[in-house]
Amino acid sequence: MFYHDKKLQYKVRVDKPDPQFARALQQAIGGIEGEIRVCLQYLFQAWNARGPQRYRDMLLDTGTEEMAHIEMLATAVCLNLEGASSSVIDTIVGNDPIMEKIVGGGDPRHFLSGGLGALASDANGVPFNGSWIVSSGNLASDMFSNVTAEATGRVLATRLYELTDDAGMKDMLSFLIARDTMHQQQWLAVLEELGHGDIRGVLPVPNSFPQSQEAQEFSYAFVNTNIDPQEPSAGQDRRWTQGPSLDGRGTFQEQKARPFGDTPRLAPPIPPGHAQVEQMEQANQQE
Amino acid sequence: MFYHDKKLQYKVRVDKPDPQFARALQQAIGGIEGEIRVCLQYLFQAWNARGPQRYRDMLLDTGTEEMAHIEMLATAVCLNLEGASSSVIDTIVGNDPIMEKIVGGGDPRHFLSGGLGALASDANGVPFNGSWIVSSGNLASDMFSNVTAEATGRVLATRLYELTDDAGMKDMLSFLIARDTMHQQQWLAVLEELGHGDIRGVLPVPNSFPQSQEAQEFSYAFVNTNIDPQEPSAGQDRRWTQGPSLDGRGTFQEQKARPFGDTPRLAPPIPPGHAQVEQMEQANQQE
Amino acid sequence: MFYHDKKLQYKVRVDKPDPQFARALQQAIGGIEGEIRVCLQYLFQAWNARGPQRYRDMLLDTGTEEMAHIEMLATAVCLNLEGASSSVIDTIVGNDPIMEKIVGGGDPRHFLSGGLGALASDANGVPFNGSWIVSSGNLASDMFSNVTAEATGRVLATRLYELTDDAGMKDMLSFLIARDTMHQQQWLAVLEELGHGDIRGVLPVPNSFPQSQEAQEFSYAFVNTNIDPQEPSAGQDRRWTQGPSLDGRGTFQEQKARPFGDTPRLAPPIPPGHAQVEQMEQANQQE
Amino acid sequence: MFYHDKKLQYKVRVDKPDPQFARALQQAIGGIEGEIRVCLQYLFQAWNARGPQRYRDMLLDTGTEEMAHIEMLATAVCLNLEGASSSVIDTIVGNDPIMEKIVGGGDPRHFLSGGLGALASDANGVPFNGSWIVSSGNLASDMFSNVTAEATGRVLATRLYELTDDAGMKDMLSFLIARDTMHQQQWLAVLEELGHGDIRGVLPVPNSFPQSQEAQEFSYAFVNTNIDPQEPSAGQDRRWTQGPSLDGRGTFQEQKARPFGDTPRLAPPIPPGHAQVEQMEQANQQE
Amino acid sequence: MFYHDKKLQYKVRVDKPDPQFARALQQAIGGIEGEIRVCLQYLFQAWNARGPQRYRDMLLDTGTEEMAHIEMLATAVCLNLEGASSSVIDTIVGNDPIMEKIVGGGDPRHFLSGGLGALASDANGVPFNGSWIVSSGNLASDMFSNVTAEATGRVLATRLYELTDDAGMKDMLSFLIARDTMHQQQWLAVLEELGHGDIRGVLPVPNSFPQSQEAQEFSYAFVNTNIDPQEPSAGQDRRWTQGPSLDGRGTFQEQKARPFGDTPRLAPPIPPGHAQVEQMEQANQQE
Amino acid sequence: MFYHDKKLQYKVRVDKPDPQFARALQQAIGGIEGEIRVCLQYLFQAWNARGPQRYRDMLLDTGTEEMAHIEMLATAVCLNLEGASSSVIDTIVGNDPIMEKIVGGGDPRHFLSGGLGALASDANGVPFNGSWIVSSGNLASDMFSNVTAEATGRVLATRLYELTDDAGMKDMLSFLIARDTMHQQQWLAVLEELGHGDIRGVLPVPNSFPQSQEAQEFSYAFVNTNIDPQEPSAGQDRRWTQGPSLDGRGTFQEQKARPFGDTPRLAPPIPPGHAQVEQMEQANQQE
Repeated sequence: MFYHDKKLQYKVRVDKPDPQFARALQQAIGGIEGEIRVCLQYLFQAWNARGPQRYRDMLLDTGTEEMAHIEMLATAVCLNLEGASSSVIDTIVGNDPIMEKIVGGGDPRHFLSGGLGALASDANGVPFNGSWIVSSGNLASDMFSNVTAEATGRVLATRLYELTDDAGMKDMLSFLIARDTMHQQQWLAVLEELGHGDIRGVLPVPNSFPQSQEAQEFSYAFVNTNIDPQEPSAGQDRRWTQGPSLDGRGTFQEQKARPFGDTPRLAPPIPPGHAQVEQMEQANQQE
Repeated sequence: MFYHDKKLQYKVRVDKPDPQFARALQQAIGGIEGEIRVCLQYLFQAWNARGPQRYRDMLLDTGTEEMAHIEMLATAVCLNLEGASSSVIDTIVGNDPIMEKIVGGGDPRHFLSGGLGALASDANGVPFNGSWIVSSGNLASDMFSNVTAEATGRVLATRLYELTDDAGMKDMLSFLIARDTMHQQQWLAVLEELGHGDIRGVLPVPNSFPQSQEAQEFSYAFVNTNIDPQEPSAGQDRRWTQGPSLDGRGTFQEQKARPFGDTPRLAPPIPPGHAQVEQMEQANQQE
Repeated sequence: MFYHDKKLQYKVRVDKPDPQFARALQQAIGGIEGEIRVCLQYLFQAWNARGPQRYRDMLLDTGTEEMAHIEMLATAVCLNLEGASSSVIDTIVGNDPIMEKIVGGGDPRHFLSGGLGALASDANGVPFNGSWIVSSGNLASDMFSNVTAEATGRVLATRLYELTDDAGMKDMLSFLIARDTMHQQQWLAVLEELGHGDIRGVLPVPNSFPQSQEAQEFSYAFVNTNIDPQEPSAGQDRRWTQGPSLDGRGTFQEQKARPFGDTPRLAPPIPPGHAQVEQMEQANQQE
Repeated sequence: MFYHDKKLQYKVRVDKPDPQFARALQQAIGGIEGEIRVCLQYLFQAWNARGPQRYRDMLLDTGTEEMAHIEMLATAVCLNLEGASSSVIDTIVGNDPIMEKIVGGGDPRHFLSGGLGALASDANGVPFNGSWIVSSGNLASDMFSNVTAEATGRVLATRLYELTDDAGMKDMLSFLIARDTMHQQQWLAVLEELGHGDIRGVLPVPNSFPQSQEAQEFSYAFVNTNIDPQEPSAGQDRRWTQGPSLDGRGTFQEQKARPFGDTPRLAPPIPPGHAQVEQMEQANQQE
Repeated sequence: MFYHDKKLQYKVRVDKPDPQFARALQQAIGGIEGEIRVCLQYLFQAWNARGPQRYRDMLLDTGTEEMAHIEMLATAVCLNLEGASSSVIDTIVGNDPIMEKIVGGGDPRHFLSGGLGALASDANGVPFNGSWIVSSGNLASDMFSNVTAEATGRVLATRLYELTDDAGMKDMLSFLIARDTMHQQQWLAVLEELGHGDIRGVLPVPNSFPQSQEAQEFSYAFVNTNIDPQEPSAGQDRRWTQGPSLDGRGTFQEQKARPFGDTPRLAPPIPPGHAQVEQMEQANQQE
Repeated sequence: MFYHDKKLQYKVRVDKPDPQFARALQQAIGGIEGEIRVCLQYLFQAWNARGPQRYRDMLLDTGTEEMAHIEMLATAVCLNLEGASSSVIDTIVGNDPIMEKIVGGGDPRHFLSGGLGALASDANGVPFNGSWIVSSGNLASDMFSNVTAEATGRVLATRLYELTDDAGMKDMLSFLIARDTMHQQQWLAVLEELGHGDIRGVLPVPNSFPQSQEAQEFSYAFVNTNIDPQEPSAGQDRRWTQGPSLDGRGTFQEQKARPFGDTPRLAPPIPPGHAQVEQMEQANQQE
């Protein structure tokens, strides 16, 4: 079962809201390379696991972590959609540059269906699709599928990094890129345990992104999300929590999960989005 | 962010595996009335929430709980697919009555794609679809959508209850039905706070299922999944954690989330499912 | 069975064609909050109705009305796509500002696949999906689903209202918003009859849209689309055709369906859309 | 705009309920060859029509008729799902042979999601998809698409005819097959008017189904669903309402739409389907 | 079985890359009117063919040809996405006009998911869907479906032709339009053989596109893709390889398939797309 | 561009038709682990390739080969659906055990939509979905995705092997399993070339299937489908055409593609499937 923390796993800050970037971020939420997919894929693999228990635990740990990544990205989408200043609200929305971008080059459903909120869809508004969840019952197949998900996911994250010059967004992405670095290796470590020889040179995928730009303190850390303080998943037979990393560039370690970010605070609803009256009133008073 | 517990929120036991029932249970996992939908819907509503903070907290609490329900149901699917006794394993699968049921009247992908595992699909194998996630930015719309989800979900759960005579499955469903009873009311309590008058007679939906058959100790309990022991979401202004329930049949209370079930133990992979050799060997030795 | 009238239920006029608004309108046609969904949902609920006959009749009445709303919106999309003046036709389409908007910020399939016509898709071109049709066999579940559909639908319509400053489009939307006001209440009236107490304050959803801007003569009118003049659905036991409205702001009444709009007249096909030669010739001669 | 009649266009009777046949019928409702598709396709073509007005009228007439076919088929599905006799209701559903067929070889969602009702899906439970609606803006393309829909639709209907030996179902299908005979020809008549020469020998598709088994009084009749008694669509320049049929086997005529069937009466909800209590009580008392 | 040639069936050249046109071209790749659909549709019809062998052969010939059209269009998409000059690569992508167009009016997944590559999706990013493949087992139904596919496909191609003023793209499209001219007629020739009388005036659909603008040397040529030089599909009883064309405007002939284009050469990956380091290095050195 | 051969790549024989097995085979055609997916994935990766040319060639070779696998499997589905003996044809289909199996435990659309033909869908009738095609522009991501596809594909093929005791089907599957063995290794060989160290122990996935049961003469052969006899893709720098295989169990070699199977011959259409009259007559006469 699961628990939550109101704080984010890592900080999410947007200096200059950009609805087109919000649309691009949707690919990392609801796209085939995105976080809903990896979250559900790892959890289904855990729940369906009939093999050695330690892989089940590891999958639960990381599947739970990925849920926090969806949360960060959804928060980032919301923040990128803000910016309709209060002076705009009695003029027509069509004159609002943020609204124009949403309708012109962003995702119009961010406003129409979400009232400036994230969707469970990709960058083209195509809904997340459960067919992407691979849980085959064969551990090697599943691990290759997980490596693929983290490889395509990291490629996507580096491209998003290139698309923005917002410092807050680059910081958030540097964290997510680092986590993908680790996750690629931890699935390959399972393959290594299963008989795979020596795996290194291609990692991390893509290897063309300078690692100095990722949040390197997280690049080789296995995040243990188990609520029980007595139950570290690390141990002498766990390849992914100790010893040199597979790519030879770091040392694996284990961290108990804890938030590095704060509880998110979104702007109140904009009037043209027609939230309930009480909702807008209380949002304005609050705290 | 999120944490997990290896134990289940409530016990899941299958006395008599039934692949056709496994197929039916998929509707409660990946169908439009299912738990992936409510889990993601409540979490997206929380992440997108621009209104009063206390509704965001509540949505996080319950969205997190729903993740535990997917876990229980996925475990139930796995257990319903077991039963290929060890004497069967050197004969051809086609002679195995469980396999015949899977291919004949169950979901053939439970074997073909899952190796006897659950899928992110409905009872017809149609994948979960992100278009079902409603997070409109209008609190009343969202709450009506949530009530609908819990009403159709509880109708589904009661039908599943009628379809089986397995005592373990009935017990698990009595818990899920009770949670739907509560969840219907907590969303309506938000509507009441927003100005809705007096809501009672139709609850719980369906009102034709005898409440004596649900796990009544959970029927009016708000489950707080926040990891911080100092932060109960209950308080004087939270309608859903105290006072008489909306249907007048109970008293609302708040419980800190804790597991009532155990860590699940699935049978090892069956040979015709072609897991990796090491996976099967270690599964057999394990613990 | 069904009949049609060449006239529209309400007038549809576009003063200033806008392909981006045409794209936004698609959400109200083929989106999950849209009119194809409510039309089919109410009709399937009617066709599957095993309960009191009067609810079946009511569902048929309103399902039939919704078909007229799809028609109005499809017409509105077509009119918003017009404007390629005849002087444009021997120059390349790429220079046509309307075409540029379609390809840049509108839906390119409006031209590519529709020849300036509406699609059965949402604002992102994602096709209408039958999974959205809820007809559960439990009347309370169905009514909550219907209220949700009208609540999210009315939120969408008010957002579309804010997105345009075209007087014709605002007029059309004021009609559709009024109909959603009524429809929300008529489904809640069924819940009231089924035992629900007193429902008012949140209505209509969203309650932040000034009712003075909706076409109020239609806000509390039940539209009877039954072809038989002798068969009003109204009667002493029909809560939704008489007495004060649920929100206390009006009086329910019943109207026999009749057109307030005209037969639509679209512009002839533009040459770059490559209709058949005869079609273009006859379109120009016609009447 | 549209009107309805509580009576069906043609009678729907099921002598021997068969859930597997109910599943097969779903293909004709929500499949790519089915009636939702033709209904919406013809209506979108009408609403998007920029060409000669008379084709718009014709498309409206037939699109409206197809809605009545969905209604007939949905009613047929419901009737094929009935048969849980009142003596069964206090035993477990699992022992009920109808339920077993639904879960084993029928569509389990007919019970789980529909409470013995039809779905907007195909014979495998795959939802109707709006991408199938072709409305290209080119009349010849559209007419070829319409002929295809009626050809594949009639092939499907003849296969359904072969799958059943229920006299009521064969009677209903003989009507639908006859209507497809006519509809194939009326779209080809438009092509003929547009310059197509002489079209005959392949018609109707399939030509291997004995026409003696179709309801021949409807095989060459254009059904005018326009509510205005003064506005027959027939006229001297309408190829599809007079003169020899394209296949040379009949004479086209025009009929004002009227019901040949009755208002459907479904059995009350079965207890394990958990409708609301009031719904079941009133269903039993009713009339 | 199948073989390939590294050369393209016809030349593909882009003088002025345009990401918005790349997006529009996607409709011809992965849309319902597109080439993946016709390729798979003809091949499935061939593989499922139980009727006269010569139709199977013909379907194989043309299904194989269509695969070459997907290839041409995918190449065209790639070339339209190029243009980020090497001077751009150390500045941020957001300043690159090509990138801006992709994100603003193009398909953002061309960069995010494809690294400047084509997708198996339509112009809105909606994935290709296998439900579009019609193979009914009835030859007349199938041929009407094929004519429809080529009619809507040719309408689409002529609209794409109008949308661009790039000479290379117009040349490629003139070839594809000519092939659609032929393909429409060859399916109709089957219908003629099956008993259809005389078919001409509407062809080719659309008939409003000047045939002088299509690559007329290919307009009435049946392309035989069979690898066996001894096995021409032409023969005295094959209507589509000799004699006057159905539209009376040409003479059918048969050509052995051969490439008129070259092996495509794409630009190397751009740095912000984060290909692997080795991939970029070797791409630059290559040949 | 592409060419075809009427003969199959490998022989396809069914001794004992089984519609339920036909349904299971659909997973290998249109499922996420299936052949349409790998065919299009490799071809899109080839067409989008901006990197070293030799990988493009290799992808073209294997993508073309996969098309032949779809063909084999579609043929196998057709053959598994046969068996309605000619004596059955004047009795009702419902009495035919093959038909009963199709409707009861097989895919009813095999008859209803296909007239005993294969579909572009998975084992539950869910259509093939273009979102599964991964072509990321990063070679390592793509290769991991390809290994995953071949790993899950080979797991699926071994499960299908276990589900049948038909000698013909086992023979066909032993070939496909062998090809997956090779394909896994050729994608990994690219990774090795890109810097990956030493990869062996897990291969082939699943490693629990006895290689003695695969068609071992094909297990380490790279099939060159290039039509040009002068252009072997093999060369001194191609890891996948020479030297020891990655798993150390064989030696890589290159073979020019050629058919090991015959031109397939399907049974004529069954009367209740309502093909056209001429189609059935000529099918019976033919050859």
